[in-house]
Amino acid sequence: MDFATIIGIFGGFGLVIIAMAAGGGLEWFLDGPSAMIVFGGTFGAVLINYPISDIMGVMQVAKNAFRGKKQQAGVVIHQLVEMSKISRRDGIISLQKMIQETRDPFLIKAINLVVDGVDPSHVSEILETELDFIGERHRLGAEIFTTMGNFAPAMGLVGTLIGLVQMLKQMNNPSTIGPAMAVALITTFYGVLLANLVFLPIAGKLKTKSSQEILLKQLIINGILSIQSGDNPRVLEQKLHSYIAPRERRSRFYRD
Amino acid sequence: MDFATIIGIFGGFGLVIIAMAAGGGLEWFLDGPSAMIVFGGTFGAVLINYPISDIMGVMQVAKNAFRGKKQQAGVVIHQLVEMSKISRRDGIISLQKMIQETRDPFLIKAINLVVDGVDPSHVSEILETELDFIGERHRLGAEIFTTMGNFAPAMGLVGTLIGLVQMLKQMNNPSTIGPAMAVALITTFYGVLLANLVFLPIAGKLKTKSSQEILLKQLIINGILSIQSGDNPRVLEQKLHSYIAPRERRSRFYRD
Amino acid sequence: MDFATIIGIFGGFGLVIIAMAAGGGLEWFLDGPSAMIVFGGTFGAVLINYPISDIMGVMQVAKNAFRGKKQQAGVVIHQLVEMSKISRRDGIISLQKMIQETRDPFLIKAINLVVDGVDPSHVSEILETELDFIGERHRLGAEIFTTMGNFAPAMGLVGTLIGLVQMLKQMNNPSTIGPAMAVALITTFYGVLLANLVFLPIAGKLKTKSSQEILLKQLIINGILSIQSGDNPRVLEQKLHSYIAPRERRSRFYRD
Amino acid sequence: MDFATIIGIFGGFGLVIIAMAAGGGLEWFLDGPSAMIVFGGTFGAVLINYPISDIMGVMQVAKNAFRGKKQQAGVVIHQLVEMSKISRRDGIISLQKMIQETRDPFLIKAINLVVDGVDPSHVSEILETELDFIGERHRLGAEIFTTMGNFAPAMGLVGTLIGLVQMLKQMNNPSTIGPAMAVALITTFYGVLLANLVFLPIAGKLKTKSSQEILLKQLIINGILSIQSGDNPRVLEQKLHSYIAPRERRSRFYRD
Amino acid sequence: MDFATIIGIFGGFGLVIIAMAAGGGLEWFLDGPSAMIVFGGTFGAVLINYPISDIMGVMQVAKNAFRGKKQQAGVVIHQLVEMSKISRRDGIISLQKMIQETRDPFLIKAINLVVDGVDPSHVSEILETELDFIGERHRLGAEIFTTMGNFAPAMGLVGTLIGLVQMLKQMNNPSTIGPAMAVALITTFYGVLLANLVFLPIAGKLKTKSSQEILLKQLIINGILSIQSGDNPRVLEQKLHSYIAPRERRSRFYRD
Repeated sequence: MDFATIIGIFGGFGLVIIAMAAGGGLEWFLDGPSAMIVFGGTFGAVLINYPISDIMGVMQVAKNAFRGKKQQAGVVIHQLVEMSKISRRDGIISLQKMIQETRDPFLIKAINLVVDGVDPSHVSEILETELDFIGERHRLGAEIFTTMGNFAPAMGLVGTLIGLVQMLKQMNNPSTIGPAMAVALITTFYGVLLANLVFLPIAGKLKTKSSQEILLKQLIINGILSIQSGDNPRVLEQKLHSYIAPRERRSRFYRD
Repeated sequence: MDFATIIGIFGGFGLVIIAMAAGGGLEWFLDGPSAMIVFGGTFGAVLINYPISDIMGVMQVAKNAFRGKKQQAGVVIHQLVEMSKISRRDGIISLQKMIQETRDPFLIKAINLVVDGVDPSHVSEILETELDFIGERHRLGAEIFTTMGNFAPAMGLVGTLIGLVQMLKQMNNPSTIGPAMAVALITTFYGVLLANLVFLPIAGKLKTKSSQEILLKQLIINGILSIQSGDNPRVLEQKLHSYIAPRERRSRFYRD
Repeated sequence: MDFATIIGIFGGFGLVIIAMAAGGGLEWFLDGPSAMIVFGGTFGAVLINYPISDIMGVMQVAKNAFRGKKQQAGVVIHQLVEMSKISRRDGIISLQKMIQETRDPFLIKAINLVVDGVDPSHVSEILETELDFIGERHRLGAEIFTTMGNFAPAMGLVGTLIGLVQMLKQMNNPSTIGPAMAVALITTFYGVLLANLVFLPIAGKLKTKSSQEILLKQLIINGILSIQSGDNPRVLEQKLHSYIAPRERRSRFYRD
Repeated sequence: MDFATIIGIFGGFGLVIIAMAAGGGLEWFLDGPSAMIVFGGTFGAVLINYPISDIMGVMQVAKNAFRGKKQQAGVVIHQLVEMSKISRRDGIISLQKMIQETRDPFLIKAINLVVDGVDPSHVSEILETELDFIGERHRLGAEIFTTMGNFAPAMGLVGTLIGLVQMLKQMNNPSTIGPAMAVALITTFYGVLLANLVFLPIAGKLKTKSSQEILLKQLIINGILSIQSGDNPRVLEQKLHSYIAPRERRSRFYRD
Repeated sequence: MDFATIIGIFGGFGLVIIAMAAGGGLEWFLDGPSAMIVFGGTFGAVLINYPISDIMGVMQVAKNAFRGKKQQAGVVIHQLVEMSKISRRDGIISLQKMIQETRDPFLIKAINLVVDGVDPSHVSEILETELDFIGERHRLGAEIFTTMGNFAPAMGLVGTLIGLVQMLKQMNNPSTIGPAMAVALITTFYGVLLANLVFLPIAGKLKTKSSQEILLKQLIINGILSIQSGDNPRVLEQKLHSYIAPRERRSRFYRD
């Protein structure tokens, strides 16, 4: 679990709700038609904007925002250095038994290609295209949330304009103006709150997670090609360590 | 038919209209001069912005937003792999009979070039330029809708300012202020609603469809060049599969 | 004449004016100081932003927005294919007599360079630099109109703030509030209207026209270099046709 | 002197001030705390944003916005063509005496490098790095003004919010509401006016001037390298003329 | 210490506070729920947006905004020129003793690689990857502050909408409207002030500092590679001087 996302959503909404309750009843902020306009309008706009299969796929991707880091770069580097040692000692075919020890489908595919004796340039091309595709799928996920974050306040404005027109058309009784205007403003409140405490931050988290995952896969590609070309495990480790922060580096060879 | 677009537009507008009806009469939101300013102004701005032939052409392009996916990438990959097998067995001239089995003019053009024995570098150049041109036409279509999405709320603001000036100039009778202001706000309502539930989402859908179509044509170019150079059908399939998501891959050779 | 620009400006303003007249007198929307602030401020900001020679030059460029398409790509392709035939039959010197048949200074310069026997790499470099310069001049023209489109609403806001301060400072007589506020809003109205119905759409049209003209000149460069290297006229036509839409292609050799 | 900048600032402010005076007293628009918030806040934000040495340096750069064009491209091209002739006639060492005839430190540095017999690739590298640095310094200057143009209206909003809170907290006497709100709006007026009639246009002018100066220096680099490699003066002129507009070209060899 | 940052924050806030005090009591601007919404909401949004480790890391990076320039480019150039002389006189191994004289871990790593006899292409690759990583870490730091600068005013708007709804729902007593609206506006005031006087300027400073530091490290990489390839110290100095402004150049060989 990614606790930052959970704490952020609950903490953010919690404080907003406490502030809302402190100034009066929470039920003042509940309004059916406003919710219908913001949720319905935003979802409608997204449905027009993207094919239905992409929107379904985004639910899959969105779960990433709530999941903890899948793999530690340090662990992957250790695995690749071990594979480099084994490959130099027992031959590249011996990597086959490493497949049982990993669960990352990308690493498994990479090992399989190398064990099958595929040409290095072909290994690189296939893994890079695969990585491009993964990046594109992530980018689409983040983009759909950004789009929701842009449409929600706009639909909020639509709802507020509807409320204002309705209020102004029947302005006979001055005592109803206040509450009617309050209801009109709730739609904008929904739109701005959803955009800034849900849609846009989740889009941001998906982008961050995606760049972490892609960095890790880039590291795997470099490592696998280095193993295939029979590089020294020490050189391999030094090369892969430059991908991560100094404080995360744990050498099997040197004390930095 | 692309049902997502239909559901999005009808669902979005439906919910907005229900919310409008719930708070009073729908006829409150009908105003001729407001519609004239928003539609006329937006269309005028677009007419100044783009040559008339491009605006006509956009209608052609816009239909794409309401059309279902024309071709499945998996089907095209299967076709190309079959063509690769036939070409290796019966010679490249034998691809001519494949032309009857496809309706995609781009694939037909590609096959014709290869059958005519045109030089690979020339085949690649002609198809890539053709693809650039298609991409440019799509981009223009999406851009015109984005432009409409930007001008519509601005024209809405123009109309609201006109309404406010008219209201303020004749503010003798306080009881008319409310309805007059309601009418003034309707123009902004039209502009924001049109932009966010029609123009901008359609621009988004056109962009998405365009990138799908261009990906498919890029795949065709790679496949045709691979067939021309006599690649192994298995290698061809593996190469083309890296363009699509793992779950969409149906190999004729392996079980992934 | 580019009728789209004319229709757009007159149609857009016409509908806005009809809507204005429908709600009261047009004279309500005339205000000297407001015009002074929006026009003076916008022009002042542009004068600071750009050298005076560029602003003068922009008037030259702006006329393009109101001019019809100067050249048809199809006609130019036909001319180049004819030149290719003549050049292969009678020698490259014979192109000199083609200069009388064209009025495009860029094509004339290109023919002159080739007839003078200038080295192909030099021909390409000189024409490309020339084209870069033309593109830069167009870009500057569109940029100045975009800048005006950004400053006009800002100056409108300045004028409205001035009007509001003046109104609020002398708020003794409630009956004057309405008309005074109406006058204050007129400046914003001027700024938003000018930006969205004049400056920004003209900037857009200039960009569109520029990319058409540059495409055409790129086509001329490719054609001239192809003629210089003695390419087959059929190959030349096929190459140049990939620059234009399928429906605009009229082959001298094939029926597509 | 760059009269466009002077006329723009004085003309723009002049018209705004006339419009302000036409509607009441100019003293209505003077307010100490508003000025403090806009100037102090904007300057504070810029001080946090940039190192103090860069802000000092920007004053140096800002003077460029008020200075006339330092050098005419045509004159520089003439100088370079003359140098090319002399160099071919009397040897490259003879360029030394040309140093007295120019005051541009960049051209002097370029001539010195060539006269010292430095390797062409080294001359190119040193002058290009120098030019990158000049461009970077210009870019920073324009960026600081753009930053001021962004912070000024935001600080204006801060001031207006302060004024509104103060007004609303002591809303006992209705007759003071108008003037208090007028004062609150003055801060936004200051921010928007400064941004749109001073900061942003000056940022724009600095960008324009920078690109002119960099074009000129790029022309000098090309010219010097051409002289060093002993190019024909006619070819040199033709090459350098492609950097400038056709109407500015004055050939020493041809009548265009 | 970076005094510009300190002066900017204290000066900016100081002037704003003086302006606030001049118009009434400062306690008018203190409101618990408003602070909770802006701080809690902004921090919540950032927690969702970024992994917790990155947010912790940003505190480390943020200190840079308050720290003086770590190293003078001139001093580093002098060090590298000295190292070049020593290396040519006593052999490259003798650089080992220079490690004691520097405290920059990047320079130490660079010297170590060279002394260890690592291949130049490998030295370059390792240092460049290291530099990319440092730049990425800096970029993330600035991005988190920019994100806070974008969310703060949005959360301010959320708070103001909450306050307005609460005020409008209980609009029985007209005398409470003013103060209630004042409280509603305070949340926007907090958001806009924090964004424009803290978050966005600090993001700007971090960007500026980062580009200075990266320039310096780029200069070190160039210098070290030049030393490894045994370049003449004079040539080295001339090359490194092109990285800094003319007025900062202090040659050990020439009087410029």
